[in-house]
Amino acid sequence: MEHTYRLITHCPDQVGIVARVSQFVAEHGGWLTEANYHADAESNWFFMRNEIKADSLTMGADAVREAFRPIAEEYGMNWELVDSAKRRRVVILASHASHCIADLLHRWHSDELYCDIPCVISNHENLRSMVEWHGIPFEYVPVDPANKAPAHARVQQLTAKYQADCVVLARYMQIIPAEFCRAYAGRMINIHHSFLPSFIGANPYQKAFDRGVKLIGATSHYVTEQLDEGPIIEQDVIRVSHRHSKEDLVRLGKDVEKAVLARALRNHLEDRVLVHGNKTVVFD
Amino acid sequence: MEHTYRLITHCPDQVGIVARVSQFVAEHGGWLTEANYHADAESNWFFMRNEIKADSLTMGADAVREAFRPIAEEYGMNWELVDSAKRRRVVILASHASHCIADLLHRWHSDELYCDIPCVISNHENLRSMVEWHGIPFEYVPVDPANKAPAHARVQQLTAKYQADCVVLARYMQIIPAEFCRAYAGRMINIHHSFLPSFIGANPYQKAFDRGVKLIGATSHYVTEQLDEGPIIEQDVIRVSHRHSKEDLVRLGKDVEKAVLARALRNHLEDRVLVHGNKTVVFD
Amino acid sequence: MEHTYRLITHCPDQVGIVARVSQFVAEHGGWLTEANYHADAESNWFFMRNEIKADSLTMGADAVREAFRPIAEEYGMNWELVDSAKRRRVVILASHASHCIADLLHRWHSDELYCDIPCVISNHENLRSMVEWHGIPFEYVPVDPANKAPAHARVQQLTAKYQADCVVLARYMQIIPAEFCRAYAGRMINIHHSFLPSFIGANPYQKAFDRGVKLIGATSHYVTEQLDEGPIIEQDVIRVSHRHSKEDLVRLGKDVEKAVLARALRNHLEDRVLVHGNKTVVFD
Amino acid sequence: MEHTYRLITHCPDQVGIVARVSQFVAEHGGWLTEANYHADAESNWFFMRNEIKADSLTMGADAVREAFRPIAEEYGMNWELVDSAKRRRVVILASHASHCIADLLHRWHSDELYCDIPCVISNHENLRSMVEWHGIPFEYVPVDPANKAPAHARVQQLTAKYQADCVVLARYMQIIPAEFCRAYAGRMINIHHSFLPSFIGANPYQKAFDRGVKLIGATSHYVTEQLDEGPIIEQDVIRVSHRHSKEDLVRLGKDVEKAVLARALRNHLEDRVLVHGNKTVVFD
Repeated sequence: MEHTYRLITHCPDQVGIVARVSQFVAEHGGWLTEANYHADAESNWFFMRNEIKADSLTMGADAVREAFRPIAEEYGMNWELVDSAKRRRVVILASHASHCIADLLHRWHSDELYCDIPCVISNHENLRSMVEWHGIPFEYVPVDPANKAPAHARVQQLTAKYQADCVVLARYMQIIPAEFCRAYAGRMINIHHSFLPSFIGANPYQKAFDRGVKLIGATSHYVTEQLDEGPIIEQDVIRVSHRHSKEDLVRLGKDVEKAVLARALRNHLEDRVLVHGNKTVVFD
Repeated sequence: MEHTYRLITHCPDQVGIVARVSQFVAEHGGWLTEANYHADAESNWFFMRNEIKADSLTMGADAVREAFRPIAEEYGMNWELVDSAKRRRVVILASHASHCIADLLHRWHSDELYCDIPCVISNHENLRSMVEWHGIPFEYVPVDPANKAPAHARVQQLTAKYQADCVVLARYMQIIPAEFCRAYAGRMINIHHSFLPSFIGANPYQKAFDRGVKLIGATSHYVTEQLDEGPIIEQDVIRVSHRHSKEDLVRLGKDVEKAVLARALRNHLEDRVLVHGNKTVVFD
Repeated sequence: MEHTYRLITHCPDQVGIVARVSQFVAEHGGWLTEANYHADAESNWFFMRNEIKADSLTMGADAVREAFRPIAEEYGMNWELVDSAKRRRVVILASHASHCIADLLHRWHSDELYCDIPCVISNHENLRSMVEWHGIPFEYVPVDPANKAPAHARVQQLTAKYQADCVVLARYMQIIPAEFCRAYAGRMINIHHSFLPSFIGANPYQKAFDRGVKLIGATSHYVTEQLDEGPIIEQDVIRVSHRHSKEDLVRLGKDVEKAVLARALRNHLEDRVLVHGNKTVVFD
Repeated sequence: MEHTYRLITHCPDQVGIVARVSQFVAEHGGWLTEANYHADAESNWFFMRNEIKADSLTMGADAVREAFRPIAEEYGMNWELVDSAKRRRVVILASHASHCIADLLHRWHSDELYCDIPCVISNHENLRSMVEWHGIPFEYVPVDPANKAPAHARVQQLTAKYQADCVVLARYMQIIPAEFCRAYAGRMINIHHSFLPSFIGANPYQKAFDRGVKLIGATSHYVTEQLDEGPIIEQDVIRVSHRHSKEDLVRLGKDVEKAVLARALRNHLEDRVLVHGNKTVVFD
């Protein structure tokens, strides 16, 4: 993977933003390997993602940041300059189901996902061996249905201890407390096992089966306090028919879930997902 | 198209149904060109569709029906024997939008849909010339928003006059009175411009845009008294992104709508769609 | 449709292109509604498409072109500034099959394709009425299998007479002479009824049927002197199975062909397709 | 998984086959959970797959086979009665790439693939630990490029020793000797990393990149002596664009490869794939 810096910005739209930013990049020798722009006409908002060869820049990242600050202020930008070489720390929360986590771990193990996974937290013990085979600590935090607060607190404590930059709910199946959602706004990714907004809440495959839909899907989104209502990052579907039982839907859905979650996480890790309001811009 | 008879049956499941029916077919010389079976474990119901070469049968259709009746009664079957050569009469209801009806008319005109279209009814005049070019009568029935009942009555009257076997709502955009729904139960096909059950009701593209979904879809279903809740025949989706405005969604969605409606109607006309409860078995 | 100017450029990659071009745009007041960039690492080539609100520019198009020329020369650019309001003249060549041309005509008629269609040329008479209903002249140019040259000459003559900017082969089924290909390089679009490079040449559905593929497809590409080898603009596929006869493949394939051709043409008309070598960059 | 017997037959088509077979099944109390039929008009061949609840049969499997033999002979059937409870022994051949084998092992480990995997054979050591974690023996058989015959012989010897019913080439990347192909005709499954027949042979992703295709695919097929020419079981594709490098194609293709191979193997293990000539009937 080429070493780059990613200059991610979004701000109110006006004439000259691209000129100003790209002039800045060029002044510092920056060679663009990729550049993406989006002007949202509805909200009059402008989004940019510039990927710059690290060794083309004539000064260090911190100096670049310092130099860019006045421009950002002038345009009222939300912005960051991300070093592609810095591995984000992704804590994965799982439950009993293994398909999403096995998929993520294999992608990580085979260098398809550029990140560290400092630990996996689960409310079941069954995945311990698989996780530990990958050399990743496994933290067992059972959830008492009658009193979930201590488990939630423990999970949040562990997330802090392992210094998570990002939290992935790989079919964790627990409702995340509002405070935890806020702490990881735009950095906590869930996979929901339906094509949202269809079948919000529990048992989407049962609902899909009962409704007789001809496609089932999965949705990866950032977690917000509103259950299954956060900004959607990625969705996909698969065709089903009357021949499929509810168990078939569950089985077929697994393949969609894991693919959608992996694509969403990869895009997140490459800073391709910009959140604005309750929607995303995904520069893929 | 080969001349066949289609023996369509469904009934409570038990041992020996296939044996009994296929023995009956064989006894009368019936050569099967296609045979489909489905046992629904949940409802313990059995569905069959046998397509039989017409000229292989040793007796006429009415005689076959007479001979089959005792078997049907023994097994408690819903059934019919359909002559593939008999063109169903399909009345199309349209509004202002032309994409679905233009698509259906072209398929019909190029012999891809085997049916008669005795007339098109619309609450707008703009499609008259297109319809009449195809040699099909065009009936203009404007709808007074303040008093819709007369228009509905007129439409139902025309449907009866033109002896419709089947009614297609090609983006008609009017809510069909309950009594009309009941009269055409399992024979009135709608295209809804969303991936149901997402975005039920009006303005689904606006809702999809606001929610930021990454796929938009369309759903063809039989019309029932519950708006957008009838048995689903066919669905499909298309990928969209942040780059697409609401107008883009409308434009891209048209292609999905017309394809889904055409597939649903074709399957209906070939007696491939069996309704059971609020779900369909589609032997495609 | 908003009135814009599209500044399309491609050239050898180097630091500062985006800065230079976007600075130029900003200097003249240009408000970007869309901006796309692609750096091809393999060929070290840079591609840009800037869409600029027409009324934001402080000078006329010709003056902008004049002002841009020195920059284009400095960077060795292939470039053009296209007025989105200018309708391109698209001559369609068809044969007996109606699905692609009916689809294109309906999209044009319903303002989904922004262009003029000065005439349709065909070697069969059967589509005359459909074409003329749309108010478009129909030119019948039969092809003598024993001596095709006169027909080809006549087609090229008509194309010139009708001042075609772009030629679309909507299942024309004739091999285009090399000289005609060269005259319309990058402006003559074909739809091939297979997923190229599978099944090059004649009878692709028969070949697909014989090979037992599980998906069939269609490919839209610019025509070059090498049959079915030109730069690919768009492709798509549809699932098939053992249940489908060769006739079914032909029927199902039609839907893919017309959708692929329409998307390719639309992207071409919006100047979203940049050709480089034998490949395309499609900014869709 | 319900315990069933699968009666799989194919033979020249004639009137009465379904009647005769289903009568036989019913006579012995057989409750059909699934029944699939296909009449191939081109070759005049008939294919059936009947799935029968094991505990509904009034006699044992061997007795059923004995009783069915005369019918099979009368109709000239290829046939077998398969006990769904008997796990097939699947030997997997792999090379350095891990994505397909990791996917298959996880599906097997999570009971999604009903089979035994008596061993994995590879010409590289890198997958040993992953395979052994699953409790499966790992056999390392390096291939000397200058003299491949001994390695091929060793692989075939191991396949025999481990009593393989089925061999899966999970990106094994070696050409299988003709004699080995014949020994496992219809039981040796390969995954080819292109949408066959496009890009037969080596380096399909490089070829796809060079051709500028807009979709890449994968094909699972039975291995025959003709390289990449065997009967196709399953195919799928994924969309790519100018933004994707050859390395991106390789990465994106992995997801298609593993999904296609897993679906093909599952259908094979459930006796849903019937080979006839160089084509397959897949009752999925």
